[in-house]
Order: sequence, then structure tokens, then C-alpha cells
Amino acid sequence: MSVHAYGARAGDQPLEAMEIYRRAPGPHDVQIDIAYCGICHSDLHTVRAEWEGTCYPCVPGHEIVGKVSAVGDHVTGFRVGDVVGVGCMVDSCQQCEECEAGFENYCDGMVMTYNSPSEDEPGWTLGGYSQKIVVNERFVLRIHHAEEHLAAVAPLLCAGITTYSPLRHWQVGSGKKVGVVGIGGLGHMAIKLAHAMGAHVVAFTTSESKREAARQLGADETVNSRNAEEMTEHLNSFDFILNTVAASHDLDAFLALLKRDGTMTLLGVPGTPHPSPNVFNLVMKRRSLAGSLIGGIAETQEMLDFCAEHGIVADIELIGADQINTAYARMEKGDVKYRFVIDCATLAAG
Amino acid sequence: MSVHAYGARAGDQPLEAMEIYRRAPGPHDVQIDIAYCGICHSDLHTVRAEWEGTCYPCVPGHEIVGKVSAVGDHVTGFRVGDVVGVGCMVDSCQQCEECEAGFENYCDGMVMTYNSPSEDEPGWTLGGYSQKIVVNERFVLRIHHAEEHLAAVAPLLCAGITTYSPLRHWQVGSGKKVGVVGIGGLGHMAIKLAHAMGAHVVAFTTSESKREAARQLGADETVNSRNAEEMTEHLNSFDFILNTVAASHDLDAFLALLKRDGTMTLLGVPGTPHPSPNVFNLVMKRRSLAGSLIGGIAETQEMLDFCAEHGIVADIELIGADQINTAYARMEKGDVKYRFVIDCATLAAG
Repeated sequence: MSVHAYGARAGDQPLEAMEIYRRAPGPHDVQIDIAYCGICHSDLHTVRAEWEGTCYPCVPGHEIVGKVSAVGDHVTGFRVGDVVGVGCMVDSCQQCEECEAGFENYCDGMVMTYNSPSEDEPGWTLGGYSQKIVVNERFVLRIHHAEEHLAAVAPLLCAGITTYSPLRHWQVGSGKKVGVVGIGGLGHMAIKLAHAMGAHVVAFTTSESKREAARQLGADETVNSRNAEEMTEHLNSFDFILNTVAASHDLDAFLALLKRDGTMTLLGVPGTPHPSPNVFNLVMKRRSLAGSLIGGIAETQEMLDFCAEHGIVADIELIGADQINTAYARMEKGDVKYRFVIDCATLAAG
Repeated sequence: MSVHAYGARAGDQPLEAMEIYRRAPGPHDVQIDIAYCGICHSDLHTVRAEWEGTCYPCVPGHEIVGKVSAVGDHVTGFRVGDVVGVGCMVDSCQQCEECEAGFENYCDGMVMTYNSPSEDEPGWTLGGYSQKIVVNERFVLRIHHAEEHLAAVAPLLCAGITTYSPLRHWQVGSGKKVGVVGIGGLGHMAIKLAHAMGAHVVAFTTSESKREAARQLGADETVNSRNAEEMTEHLNSFDFILNTVAASHDLDAFLALLKRDGTMTLLGVPGTPHPSPNVFNLVMKRRSLAGSLIGGIAETQEMLDFCAEHGIVADIELIGADQINTAYARMEKGDVKYRFVIDCATLAAG
């Protein structure tokens, strides 16, 4: 079937309305009428070919919330009308050690929600800036939030799980001191989640104006990382730091704040490398520098359930499809608190 | 008392025979007649002022084995005649969280065996290239190896614990695939220890000629890290890699060999930074890059006991004091299998 979507025909062109093809649901497929789709910085990188290998037309979007409108004959877990979500993945090999352990996100055969090879037209996956999507039920998540919050639930499917997974893996909780570097789409979720997990949360920002906002999100303390004196007060004190800043920056200033056996985990891959971290900072306190990539399907469901239970959603600005290009320009300037979400009903006009 | 020693009077001068002062044993002190002292690369860095803050005269040496020749009134753990060792530390604050947890090696008040501030003359600690040393009993280790192996036990006090501690911390053992990068003083111990712990050990070297030696040390496989094809065969397969190479080198080639949740731990601080590691390699498999520094006193005793039980000693070349300068020159060229040890009886001639 043909559905309205919004995407780019080339890396140097704005996004525009377009028609795309969606397959009829196969036996294990769930067809979803998309209500909302969040805008992730990865969308912009991909659309503009800032990473390698973008195929055009490119329809981004991997923070998808909607309602099931059809199911295949063998679908057992979902019914028409269910409120569901789709995140960064729509398939994986289902055979490797990673998939068997619930780490589809680390499967070499992971199929991302957009710009991954696909048997469907046009030969690669097309994402959530569209009216409908058809996904194997194994990659569909249940949403238990109240209906009026669904737009703000959408960013949980990427920003939520990307921060939840490392916070859980590195055992953030009561009695732990946790830092969050960068208060944007990922960072604002990390603060909310770490706070809900019971940790003592310190938000790092380079902007004085974000201090109050960080406190309102759940930070117990805020630190201006450009203030050397403030930073020194926190030396050797953190169990874990979640660093959401993708831009190249000095990692040593944060590594030095970890206590023995502390870990700083990076979520973003910088376009130009970070200055090489000082090995001394790692050796002297047996510290670790790590990375993390979204989360598995079971863990994504766990995150959604955790958020529903704790009343956690993203802070969003809801926009129509015709505002996507403006939203990209504002996102580049950091001018969003904290996530744009597209009201996909506005795609019908396209 | 005055004892013979070997040390440097300046960073640009060779080591020479000298007389140094040792305090009379205090109530909690153990006086040790040093039989053997290993030569660590750190000795050379310190003597030549390649790191900051070397005080002269500088007497290095922190791989010390000998016999107790006197004990203070309140010493309960040692008697005259006991065979003992001293490693990289001779004191710590004994009050901080690290000390209480048995991590004196991560105590900010750790007093290193040489070149640390001291109340004794000349105002800083003097190491094991000497006839005697006086050390608080808390920092004295028991040695259960047979007497004929004592020279080869000396390097366990630094090279042994520096590799044993991270191997234990990152749970190396049966069923684990472990890499050792660099087959020198540290690396040869890492291979022996990881093998004795039951791991599948892969030794990385840049020298074809070291393959056979690595196998004899206990490596199950060897890889020439300059051979891209060989390296590719091991992608995503290691649980843990212990990287003993201090010289600046490409970390990414090794990080890519770790499986999900794998860690590569660095033991050396390079003089010029490593090329900045590619964050992509960390993010894609939730890998970690870590550091580690020697080990605590309790863990050092555990390592010595483990080595005695498994018949593990270092491979050494025993030298007289008058060969120390030659040994340094050879060590710089990597011309030693795998550790020089000074026969401290030869200091008497000084």
C-alpha cells in the first residue's frame, strides 16, 4: 500500500512530503497506524549523509507510537487497536549469541528502522515520519501509558532506552552517585530515569541557564563543567557517568570525577575524535571508559513498563510535518526542550 | 644504619654504588636483608626523570625479596629468618575508604617504595637496589616458594601483581578467552597467570620470533598484530584483553577484537598519547577501555600464594650490581627474557 511520508531526496535538500510503499502484513507482521514520531539527532545525521551510506529517498524516524490497524495470521501478541511502539530496530538475525541473549541491539544482522537493507521497496527500510509502518511482532512494544501522553512517550523508544539500558547495566540505583553530561534529548531522559531509580543525580552542563531546568527534571545537583572549582569538588566521587554529548570534547575532566572502579559511558560517536583520554586517569583508580548502544527488545519493554509505572515521559514540543525542517534547524542550535515529536496526523495533508 | 646501594645522582648520569641510610626498625617495622631485586621499566623512567618529580640521589627497585634480619617490638606477623617480599608500596594512609577495602594501591596517600616523600633521610623513599630495607610489617609479604627460586620470585612483587590483579578483577578463568598484548616483563607474567587460571590465552606480538616463546609461557594461540588477516579472525571474540604495552599505539585494532561487554585494560601510561580510540568500537558492543595499577597488599599475598601453589615464577636473567647500567640499555631495546634481577649480595663489594 502507499502511504504519506516525509523524507529527503538528497543530503543537501530539505525534507518534503512523499509517498512510500508499505508491504501488506505477513503472517508475523503487525501493521501500525503511526500517531507520533519523535525526531532524534540521528535522523538529521542520516538525512544529511553525515554518516556513511545514506540511501535516498530517506525517511527517518525511530521513535514511533501508534495503534495496531492489522495483524498477520500468526500474530499472537497483538490485536487491532493495541497501543504500541517501535524503536530503532525492526529485525535482527534471531540466531546469534546476541539475539539469544536478548541483545538484538548488538546483533551484527540488526535491521534498523530506517536506512537498513530490506526486501521491501525501495530496498532499504523507511522510518516513522510516515502514516503507517509494518513490523514483525517481535520488534513491536506494548505501551501502557495513558492515551493523552502518547506523544511524549514516543522519544522513550530511542532516547529512553538508550539511557535506561546503560543506567541498568552499570547498576545505577539507591546509594549511587551518577552524573549526566549534556542536558538534551538523551540527557533529560537520563536525569529522569536515574532519579526514578533512586540515584543521587548530578547534571553537568556548560550553560548556567540549564541549571534550574535540570533540577526540575530530577537532578539533585548541577555542575557547570566549565567551572574548574566546581568540578574539583566532585573529584573521585562518581560511581557512574553517562555522557550524552556526541561533539568532540575533553573526556579527562569527567574521568577524573569517577571513584575507583567507576565507569563513564559514551552514547554518542563524535564526528571528529575526542582528544585522546589520559591513560593515567584510567590506571590510577581502575576506571573504565565504555560505550552503549540503545537496548534489546525485552529491555525496551522493561523500560516502557518502568516509565509507565513511574509516570515518566519525555519533555516534548509537538509539531506538524511542515515544521520538520525548521525543527532540524533549531535542533542543530540546541533550541529544543527536549525533543521534537511529529504529530503524524498532519501527514494526511501531504 | 648505613648500607650499600646502587642509584643515580642525576637523570643524565649512570647508576653507581652509593651509601644510603636506613632507619632502625620502629615498633611495627621489619628489617629485611635484601637477597634479590628485580628491575622494572619504571625504575628506568624514574632514574632518568622521564616522569615528573624524581629526587636525587635516586635508588630504585620495588621487586624485593629477602630475609627478615630484625623486627620491632610490636611486630606480630614476622620473625627473624622469614623469607619475605616488598613490592611497589611501603605505606598508605590506612584510614581512607580505599585502605579499608584493601585497595592501598588506590589510596591517595600511598607511599611508593622509592621516590615518595618520607620522614627518613634524605626525605624520600629509597628502593631495593640496596642491601637492606626497613618497612612497616603491614606492607611486608610472605613468600612460600622454595629457596632456590627466590631470584625469580622477585618480579612477582610488581610484574606479577600488576597482571594478576586485573586478571582476577575482570574474572579471567575457565571458559574465558583472554588476550595479552606485549610479551615482556608484564606480558610474560600475564600469560603464565592467565594460563594457570584456566583461560584460553592468546598472545599478541609484533615479532614473529616471539611466537614460540609465547607458547612455551602458556599461550594457546599467538597472533602477529601487524597481520590484518590474523587479527580479523579474532574479531568480536575476546572476553578480556590485558594490554601491557606502554608505548603509544593503535588501541582500536584490539578493541575491535572484544566481544560484547568485553574490556581491554591498559597497564602502562604512554609518554605520548595513544591515538584517540574510536568511540564506535566502544558503543557497538558495549565495550570498555580501562586501566589498572598494581594491586592491594592482601591481593599481593593472594597472588604470591597462587604462584607458589602453581609453581609460577618469572623468567629472569640474574645480574650483578655492576651490570645494572648495561641491563638498562638492553631493557630499552627489549633485549631481556623477561626480567633482570639483581643479586644484591654483589652490592657488598660497593
